[in-house]
Parts: sequence; structure tokens; C-alpha cells
Amino acid sequence: MKSLTLGIIGLGTVGGGLLTILQRSLPEIERRLGKTFNVEIIAVRDLSRARDVDTDGITLTDDPFEVVKHPKVDVVVELMGGTTLARDLVEQAIKAGKHIVTANKALIALYGNGLFALAQQHQVHIYYEASVAGGIPVIKALREGLAANEIQWLAGIINGTGNYILTEMKKPDADFASVLKTAQQLGYAEADPTYDVEGIDAAHKLTILASLAFGIELNFAQVYTEGISNITSDDIRFANSFGYEIKHLGIAQRTEAGFSLRVHPTLVPKSLLIADVNGVMNAVMVHGNHVGSTMYYGPGAGSGATASAVMADLIDLARAWEAPYACHVPALGYQAVAVDSNAKLESIDAIDCAFYLRFLVKDHPGVLARLSQTLADCDISIEHLHQEPVGESAEYALVVLTTNSVNEGRFNQALAILEGLDDVEGKIAKIRISEF
Amino acid sequence: MKSLTLGIIGLGTVGGGLLTILQRSLPEIERRLGKTFNVEIIAVRDLSRARDVDTDGITLTDDPFEVVKHPKVDVVVELMGGTTLARDLVEQAIKAGKHIVTANKALIALYGNGLFALAQQHQVHIYYEASVAGGIPVIKALREGLAANEIQWLAGIINGTGNYILTEMKKPDADFASVLKTAQQLGYAEADPTYDVEGIDAAHKLTILASLAFGIELNFAQVYTEGISNITSDDIRFANSFGYEIKHLGIAQRTEAGFSLRVHPTLVPKSLLIADVNGVMNAVMVHGNHVGSTMYYGPGAGSGATASAVMADLIDLARAWEAPYACHVPALGYQAVAVDSNAKLESIDAIDCAFYLRFLVKDHPGVLARLSQTLADCDISIEHLHQEPVGESAEYALVVLTTNSVNEGRFNQALAILEGLDDVEGKIAKIRISEF
Repeated sequence: MKSLTLGIIGLGTVGGGLLTILQRSLPEIERRLGKTFNVEIIAVRDLSRARDVDTDGITLTDDPFEVVKHPKVDVVVELMGGTTLARDLVEQAIKAGKHIVTANKALIALYGNGLFALAQQHQVHIYYEASVAGGIPVIKALREGLAANEIQWLAGIINGTGNYILTEMKKPDADFASVLKTAQQLGYAEADPTYDVEGIDAAHKLTILASLAFGIELNFAQVYTEGISNITSDDIRFANSFGYEIKHLGIAQRTEAGFSLRVHPTLVPKSLLIADVNGVMNAVMVHGNHVGSTMYYGPGAGSGATASAVMADLIDLARAWEAPYACHVPALGYQAVAVDSNAKLESIDAIDCAFYLRFLVKDHPGVLARLSQTLADCDISIEHLHQEPVGESAEYALVVLTTNSVNEGRFNQALAILEGLDDVEGKIAKIRISEF
Repeated sequence: MKSLTLGIIGLGTVGGGLLTILQRSLPEIERRLGKTFNVEIIAVRDLSRARDVDTDGITLTDDPFEVVKHPKVDVVVELMGGTTLARDLVEQAIKAGKHIVTANKALIALYGNGLFALAQQHQVHIYYEASVAGGIPVIKALREGLAANEIQWLAGIINGTGNYILTEMKKPDADFASVLKTAQQLGYAEADPTYDVEGIDAAHKLTILASLAFGIELNFAQVYTEGISNITSDDIRFANSFGYEIKHLGIAQRTEAGFSLRVHPTLVPKSLLIADVNGVMNAVMVHGNHVGSTMYYGPGAGSGATASAVMADLIDLARAWEAPYACHVPALGYQAVAVDSNAKLESIDAIDCAFYLRFLVKDHPGVLARLSQTLADCDISIEHLHQEPVGESAEYALVVLTTNSVNEGRFNQALAILEGLDDVEGKIAKIRISEF
């Protein structure tokens, strides 16, 4: 039976999961594939560390360059993360004629364009199913399953930590800070939660999904990114009362002028299935012009789930091993020459959107009339409006409202006028609404 | 640019959808594929019929055998349905060296084993993504995306008509008969709704999903099949009050002794995402030993959605056109020699399951105590119990209850004892519960 030789860089959560799959499920994989795998060498950070997984018969090294230049290795599996050393290693592996399987979303989002070109030049493949939404085969769905479609938009819960926090904040007496702390204690959030909470991790993944959906170059720098740290339990409660859940979504959308790529908290109607995706789970809705709306749901992280996606890539690669280069699915699902390197990405100000607003007003007679009139003067209409007293005092009231869909740039001008009113106290919190 | 020549059999809903995709989206498909398609010939039932789609430049024939023996045709796309003539045509096409793409679930479920063997013998491929769950690429997920996993179970809403009926029955004053009539008027249900309502269509699809999940031969004859025509609005209401939705599920499960394949109404906890899948939509949950639970959701029928899946198969086939035969994914995702032709399929009586019961009792003192005692004597415990008077009279009461998980064969014996009690009036309605 033909055997592919693997060199693995990184034996942490995902690397350990991959070894576990190879040790427990190889007979079932051989039933499917008619080929097998053997692991020749693994680069680890600390050779002396005790491990849960059996590495008998595998060379361990603390020099990852040994893996990429190992003459027996057919495929380098990059599971170390980061974008400096990892990029260098992947480039050297490609130049040495090795295929790459990686779970590294930052690497692909930031340097994918160059890496894909280099891989094409050296006639090797880069597979990266595990980089987005963990165990959910959503890259395969976009590149192959929905290939008959022009994708019109996609929207995903692609960061489990953020979704866990927003889900837990629905519980009584839970606020962002306390829930984040629990998430850190449970290991769902890092000690420095910035990447998850401020949407950077989601923006990496959205960059990849958007390029797959539209056949455009990776454009991480142009993704509008907004985190969830300003969302309050009040927002979630009010959104609920208006018929919405708040989800931290990555959204990629074809527009008249080009494309819009953005990550931000979003009110979504409770009637949509994605509104019911809770906890650390991920889900990606994809709307194609022929198929309509589909959704892909599952665990977005974790050892077994992520390693399942890495292994699926290895199986795909092994299956088509003897096929000509062009018979493999191209890196972004589009022929390299057809990938659009000049796609126009719209600024967030150019997008039409409905909005939810929350702010304090001085509780004077006629205040709601003045607010409504100010918005009406700017051609913005109010869909829902709710006001309630703040604390014991009658001095301030909390106002929440939702608007119709308007151009965001124009909306921000109206917001500035609103914030300038004597009635309004402090800043106005704004969350976008998507009905899909 | 390399062009594949298609011969299509059937120009109904799906055939028309396929032509529409080819006419509207071919440039985008060419961007992806670097190859193209042309339609040489289409077999239609009635040559004189006016059509919505443009067939300029395509030979139309009312003899489908012209398509399968046409010398220019590379791929025969079978979209006529049925299992007699369709089987004959597909066999002849295979023998003539044509690849097959089909949306015909009955054909695959009933005759797939023979057709796959014939295709292997003639070194052609049979692709059938459109046969299950319409536009959702769930066959691709099972064959490729989750290929690292041993699938432990899957459960799907794989008949949109049935799901529409159960969803509509939640509305006030809706009963099965009236909702079915509406579904027929809307075109969601056939004039003879047996295939959809009695679970036969779902059983065809489940047969296919199970073989893909477990690498076993297609076993339609051994699927336990139960329809939804005995479900009442009361059942749905009571299930809801106990924390469940009623869904018509196809379930395939690894058991200790082998496999269990069944289609039946099922109470599923409201906390599961599949409980929120409403209307004509389809969804398939798949649980793999490494990835955990994933779900695939989308439109299970309709022109564009089904044609999207057919076109995806054509793109896959075209992409790997120059690759050796073994580089393509095998028909059931497992190497032909590895497909288990002796899988033990368990009888429904052998399965452990929790149950919901609904029945009438004579409203005498102590009746609930006697019921509970009877079940307790059979080692069955009650989880939820609700009793309410029937109509104005105090003569009868309606009892609904749920039990713990027990062996179904043993449970049926207890049910016979219960039905023999003087207190119990008529038959007891039984619905299975799955917590997953």
C-alpha cells in the first residue's frame, strides 16, 4: 500500500490530535483511501517535556528546519502557529518540493497570496481546511460543494470564544468582564484575549472565506474589524425584546461596486438558524445565487476537531497523489490566473445597514420627540424604541432604538448631530443589524 | 479551453435548473475550473412542449437512448427519476464508457451496489451529490470533509415536505390533514403524498447516507420506516411542554452488534440546533469520533438548489478528468474492496430508546397509580407525565408521558400489557425520543 511520509511541526493541541487520529483511526482511513501515512519526524519546542501521545518510532527534534529539509518527508504539516518562523519554514518546505498542510489562519490571511504563488511555481499544494471553523469542512464546501454558484454573501460565527462570551452574557447578572474571566478560567480565552475579543482572529478567517467565496486575493488589511468588548448585557436583553440575538459575525458580501469584508457585533433575527448557535460552536451561512442559503455548523476549535480537518486535507492530498497538478483544487478554488488581484473593497461607510443605538438622555419632557425629529430630519426612521429609567434617580433615562437601513457614512453624520444634542449624555453605542 | 460534453436526460425542474446555471454562471465556473461544458443533447418527454429555458443549439430528442449512445457525450446527466427505465439507461451509458451524474436517490438506494460495480468495471464514475438533501453538499462532507473520522451516528431532516407539515402543525387549529392539503396546494407535496409522508423518500436518502458514513453496502430493504401521518397537534404541543420538538428523522447509528438504520418521527430536545430547522429546509447532523457533532443545513429540493449539486459533481468530474481512475473519490467514499457487504443491520426491536406515549384512560380514581405500577413492574420509569380531561365529559382523560431509555422489544411487551388494562381505552400512540 502506498504510504505518504509526514513531517509535523508542532506537537501541541492540534499536533497531538493529529497523532491520536493516526494512531486510532488509520485502519478506517486506509479503508477509505487505499493508501496510508507514516510520521517520520516531529519538531517540538521542548524535547524533554512529557507527552500524552505515543511518539515511539518517530524522530523528535527541536529544530523545525530539520523537518522541512528532511529528504523522506512528502508533506510538511505546519501546526506551530505564528507568522514569522512559520512563514520562513513553509517557504523553505515549498522550495524543497514538499506539500503543505496547515491550520494557521494568520499565516494564510497575511501571506497566503505569496505562498500560493510560490507553491504554484514549485508545483506543490497548500491545504488549509483547519484554518477556518475548526472541524467544519466549510472551505471544502466553498471551493467544491458550492462551486456552481456565485456566492453573494456569507456570514459566520468564526470565533468560539466570542460566541461563548455573548451566549453566557444572556444569563442573569453576567457582564462582559465577569464572563471573560470565566472563559479564561475554562481555557476558552487566552490570558491576553485581544485576538478573540477584538475580532482579529475572526478577521483572519473572514479574509480567507471571502477570497474563497469571490475568487479575490487575500485582503486582511482591508477588513473592517470591531470587537465585542463594548457590548453590554442590556444590549443583549433589549435586542432580544426586539426579536434579535447579538452575534459577533464575520460578513463578506458582494456589493454593487465590489465587496464588503467586515467583522463586528451584529443583531440577527431570532428566526434565523444562526441566531441559535450558542457557546463555543461555530457556524457559517453561505448564500449562493443558485443554491440559496446553506449553513455549516460544528466545533470551531479543539484538538480532535481541528486535527480532523488537517487529516481530511492529508487524505485529499494522498488520494490525488498521482494526478497531474492541475487536477487538484486550486488554492483559492479559482484558477490562479483568474484570482482577482484588484478587487474593490468598500469602506464600511459605503455600506447600507440598519442600526441599534443605546444611549443616556436627560429625562426632560419632549426628549423622545426631539430625538425622533433629529433622526427624521436626517431621513432616518425608527423601527423600535424603548426607554427606561436609570437607577433610582429620575435624572437620566436609557434609550434604545433600532432604525431602518441607511448608508453608514450618512448615519454617522446623524449620530454626531444626535450626540451634540443637550438631551443626550455621553457617547452613543451603535450596533449593526443584519436581516440577511 | 478543455470542454466536457454533456448529454442530459430529463428537462424538468432539475434539468431546467442545470441549463440555467450553465447559461448564467458558466464564466464564473470557468474561472474556477479552467475548463468548460457544452450540452450536446437533451432527452425530453414531450418535444412539442414550450419551455422556460433556452435550448438553442442543443439537440432535443424524445428517445433517451439517443443520449446514452451519443458518440460525443462524455457525461450522461440522469435527471428523469424512476428506477426502471433510468436504471436501464444508466447501465447502458456506463457500458458505453460514459460517466454518470444523477439526482436519483431511489436509483442509488435500490440499485447502487450493482451500478457502482458496473462503473468500476468500465472505469467510469457515478456522482450523486444531488440525491440527498438537495443543494447541501453533505455527501461531499461525509466522503471527504469528515474522512478522518469513524462516523458514530448521523441524523437528518431529509424530507422537506414532512418537515413543512410538522412545522405548520404547530400553528393553532392546524392538523395533519389540513396542513397536508395546504402543502399540496403550494406544490410542496405530491397528489399522492405517500413517498414523502410515509418516509420512503427519506429512507432512500438515509440508505445512501448510512453507506457513506459506515462504508457498508446500500441496504434499503433493511431500513425501518415509519411515517408522520399519526402525529397529532396534541403530540407536538405536549412534546413542546416537555422540552422537545417532533422531527421526522432519518437516523443511522453504529451499535455494538452492527448498525441501525431507521426513519421515524422523533422527539428531539429543543436545545439541539436541528430542533430549530423549520419549513421545507433540510439539515443533517453528523457525529464523528474525532470532530464531534457537525451539522449541514440548506434547501433540500428545488430547481436551483438541486441543480447546484449536480453542477458541483460535474465540476469535480471535470477537474480530475486527466487523473488516473483511483485518484477520484470512490463511489461510497471507501475503496470498493473495503465496502462491507455483510454489515449486520439491527432490527428496530434491538435498539435502546426512550419513548413518548399518548393514550386515553377511563377517568377512574387511582388510574395513574395503576399505569405507573404497570410500567414499574416492567422496569420502565416515567420521566414526564401529563393528564388532561377530554372534551366536556369527565369519562375519559388523555394521558401523555415519556419514559427512560429501554430496549424497544421489551418496551413493546410492556405496551401490550398496558393496552390490556381495563383503564386504557384503545391503542397507545408511541413516538421515539432521541437526546443525541
